[in-house]
Amino acid sequence: MAVRRIVIIGGVAAGPKAAARARRVDPGAEITLLEKGRLVSYGSCGLPFFLAGLVDSLTGLRSTPAGVVRDEEFFWREKRVRVLTGTEAEEIDPRRRLVRARRNGEVLTLPYDRLIIATGSVPLRPAIDGLDQEGVFGLHRPGDAEALRSVLARGRRAVVVGGGMIGLEVADALAARRLQVTVCEAGRHLLPGLLDEDLARLLESRLRAAGVKVVTGQPVTAITRGDGCLRVRAPDWEGEADLVVVACGVKPEVGLAARAGVEIGPTGAIAVDGRQATSVEDVFAAGDCCESTHLVTGGKTWLPLASTASKQGRVAGTNAAGGEDWFPGVVGTAVLQVAEHNVARTGLGEEEARRMGYEAIGAMVAGLDAAHYYPDHAPLALKVVADARDGRLLGAQAVGPGEVVKRIDVLATAIAFGATLDRVAHLDLGYAPAFGTALDICLHTLNQLRNRRQGLARPVRAAELKALLSGPRPPLVLDVRTREEYEARRLPCSALHIPLGELRDRLEEVRAARAPGQEIVAVCEMGVRGFEAQRLLDAAGLGPARYLEGGVWAWPYGLRT
Amino acid sequence: MAVRRIVIIGGVAAGPKAAARARRVDPGAEITLLEKGRLVSYGSCGLPFFLAGLVDSLTGLRSTPAGVVRDEEFFWREKRVRVLTGTEAEEIDPRRRLVRARRNGEVLTLPYDRLIIATGSVPLRPAIDGLDQEGVFGLHRPGDAEALRSVLARGRRAVVVGGGMIGLEVADALAARRLQVTVCEAGRHLLPGLLDEDLARLLESRLRAAGVKVVTGQPVTAITRGDGCLRVRAPDWEGEADLVVVACGVKPEVGLAARAGVEIGPTGAIAVDGRQATSVEDVFAAGDCCESTHLVTGGKTWLPLASTASKQGRVAGTNAAGGEDWFPGVVGTAVLQVAEHNVARTGLGEEEARRMGYEAIGAMVAGLDAAHYYPDHAPLALKVVADARDGRLLGAQAVGPGEVVKRIDVLATAIAFGATLDRVAHLDLGYAPAFGTALDICLHTLNQLRNRRQGLARPVRAAELKALLSGPRPPLVLDVRTREEYEARRLPCSALHIPLGELRDRLEEVRAARAPGQEIVAVCEMGVRGFEAQRLLDAAGLGPARYLEGGVWAWPYGLRT
Repeated sequence: MAVRRIVIIGGVAAGPKAAARARRVDPGAEITLLEKGRLVSYGSCGLPFFLAGLVDSLTGLRSTPAGVVRDEEFFWREKRVRVLTGTEAEEIDPRRRLVRARRNGEVLTLPYDRLIIATGSVPLRPAIDGLDQEGVFGLHRPGDAEALRSVLARGRRAVVVGGGMIGLEVADALAARRLQVTVCEAGRHLLPGLLDEDLARLLESRLRAAGVKVVTGQPVTAITRGDGCLRVRAPDWEGEADLVVVACGVKPEVGLAARAGVEIGPTGAIAVDGRQATSVEDVFAAGDCCESTHLVTGGKTWLPLASTASKQGRVAGTNAAGGEDWFPGVVGTAVLQVAEHNVARTGLGEEEARRMGYEAIGAMVAGLDAAHYYPDHAPLALKVVADARDGRLLGAQAVGPGEVVKRIDVLATAIAFGATLDRVAHLDLGYAPAFGTALDICLHTLNQLRNRRQGLARPVRAAELKALLSGPRPPLVLDVRTREEYEARRLPCSALHIPLGELRDRLEEVRAARAPGQEIVAVCEMGVRGFEAQRLLDAAGLGPARYLEGGVWAWPYGLRT
Repeated sequence: MAVRRIVIIGGVAAGPKAAARARRVDPGAEITLLEKGRLVSYGSCGLPFFLAGLVDSLTGLRSTPAGVVRDEEFFWREKRVRVLTGTEAEEIDPRRRLVRARRNGEVLTLPYDRLIIATGSVPLRPAIDGLDQEGVFGLHRPGDAEALRSVLARGRRAVVVGGGMIGLEVADALAARRLQVTVCEAGRHLLPGLLDEDLARLLESRLRAAGVKVVTGQPVTAITRGDGCLRVRAPDWEGEADLVVVACGVKPEVGLAARAGVEIGPTGAIAVDGRQATSVEDVFAAGDCCESTHLVTGGKTWLPLASTASKQGRVAGTNAAGGEDWFPGVVGTAVLQVAEHNVARTGLGEEEARRMGYEAIGAMVAGLDAAHYYPDHAPLALKVVADARDGRLLGAQAVGPGEVVKRIDVLATAIAFGATLDRVAHLDLGYAPAFGTALDICLHTLNQLRNRRQGLARPVRAAELKALLSGPRPPLVLDVRTREEYEARRLPCSALHIPLGELRDRLEEVRAARAPGQEIVAVCEMGVRGFEAQRLLDAAGLGPARYLEGGVWAWPYGLRT
């Protein structure tokens, strides 16, 4: 075979990865990478850190760990990859195996033997009047971050339109710069694509406590200027701001591929097989522009993330260079950090799974990420979701200042292998007091869902308890915490307070306080003692009782102090 | 059925867990727990923290997170479990379903319907003269820790006999108390049951750098007193100390069970099935006294750990109380912290796997636990081991100041599900710059082993390179790092220095420096550029070259600075 010519369109994440891998697999190939922007191979996930001032310059985001800047020269010198920046591919001619591109007004024609499309994604432009005015920003490319960072010192109040991952990361970065930040999310709750409402409300309460204002269920319709500031309008909310950041998500950039006859999948992204091959011979795709198989549903999904782009880029690069590799798919893992809280999810959400026809049940547990006697420990709430019919683990979500990503990564791994609850609950995870509890919260949560499935545990969620308390037949709330805990803060309702250790001897007080047939909800700090109390009440003939999942710690609606 | 009488022998980890679980499953059962010591339900894994002064009192180790001490009264009050401390079970009569125990000289006879043996482990007593003298300590029970802590202020030099998990944790605690610490290990290297020699040597070099002396291959034979101090003698080493801690491992405490006719397995621990049932009807066992199935080999193993004890205790408690649960087994995960390094392993070691007949191959990668531009990142070395025949993942080990436990937990999960390298390398792990790199080091390491298996990567280990360098045909060492890196520190040998970015243009220099047929070993900081250079040299006709696995960072034998 003659020298293999590999052309790659797109130079942010998947493209450079594919180029580097192709070079290692085929040292003799001729590899050309086209990027329409000025920069290549930059860590766009680091833009919020640049904004927050945690990263001094954009150069760091496009350097190797050894400090070498990944520019055109770097790619030529170290990898013999020809990188053409400022070069926009305008047409793919699959019959003649050519790419036509424009560079400084000049048209280039590049023949290829193998083509990799890595055109990424573009920001969604929401239907908001007044997007194109001074003081309104996006955050997709490095230039956006530079523009936004340059005005931070002049602003005092910021509104972030969109409460998804990027929106929250931007909000966090702006708050770190001491701006007053309001996040305005159109959906019912924050991170609607990531979290179920229960964990989203918990995160929302922590954001508020950290000083970030949160508005949900309000699609912004217009941004106007007046009285020296911007006014952000939604149906039932209006806010003033010195600067507005719009982060309403992205869509796959598929125009070039579609015009060349490359099949677009049901998700709107480029359809690929496990080899990252498109419907057109010798044309591959990788990264945000293409879809993936969802390993839980078996269907196609589009989840644009740098980690997936990297893996797909490697697979496309291998196959384009004559090797063989196969990308099995994703399970929907995503993580972020906001307001000193870690947020993570994998698999399907409970509501999402139900919509898809699974008989989804969930359990949420609040607990510590290390032994309570170890000096450095922090709490988190972890929720797992399974199919009640076969016990198959479907998803997990976690929020808290404690370590959550390890737990989600473990569950993501188990989900990728189609694990059942019974099996995952006994995983041999690393234990030392600095890293967890002897029965890690991850396993404890799985056990609690097993308890629920077996009928031993009957949790009630904060939202449901709140609704019940203002309904016609409120339950009797039995707080089983210590006196100190009870006096420090408690639910904003009347409650009977009996510490768990006294409950067996004071059951008569419970009987006396309970109206005939009234349900009892046991409440503790994080859920463990509440469950114990539920079992105790059941055995004493005061059941079927329930307990508040996650306890007072995870109550997102404000406490009496 | 009448009230179910459950008797549990042993009150440290598995016993209390079994009791608590049995109570939740059967609220009406009569549950009695016997413990020969004074204390129950203490976190013995926290004893090194108590020693180091990170935990103020032993009370913290036996309290609930809410601060309630788990004593006899607690178990009765909160769980209606009758705990008898200072009560030693002396005989089990399985025919009559009785346990005979002694409490303050008095003999108790306890009838049972279900019995759970959770007698734990006892320290191994090595063949060392002079063990029973002042200044020589163990660390197994809380009393040991109290005794040792009380003399710390009087000592200046300590020798720890045994470089296993407990030995290193003790050494770390004593070093934190500013003692001069020497660890003396009988085996070839530290943590012989946990790590392969390569990672053990890396850890050893880091311990030395932190001021801990390490002696390996020296079984201590005698401890004598003279000149106001203790002398610790081994065949080719002798040390002076003010105090000596002996931590030479533990063995299962099975005497009581064996005398009752309970089958002891090939590991020397009590044989149990997946229900934690022993060979004797209605007698269960859990925790350090019993063995487990190893999910990699399918055989039996004995790995006494609090995490396993907790899971087994829960399963035994469930089954004893009339429920149903099943413990599938372990994969050999273990983690510890020492000298601000995290150490973890799971599955089989490379040497161990080879001894067992697997065609084990490994790859080690050094890298960062978070994006290099994220302010808070740290390095680690991760090694994965697979069977070359079918690509099945067999084990993993990691050492470093960076986050290692998450990676090992993920791999432990994959191993538990029998995963192959190809599948695990594409796992959908959570990525954000604070938590990893877009292609996490975990996946990168798996890919590097795939590269090796495919013949793309040819790593050489530090130990082998060291041996080659002093052998008859030393390789040409080609250092491809930047000038700054090279000048800061380098391998203690002659080397040709050409930064990777200049290598393509300076290949003639390499040709000139290389003797006919001489092998070239490319060296970089952590291994990535070395591998790139290897591929480049191969393509230039200068191969087959190799690269130093883990680079200069993981070189454990001292560097030239």
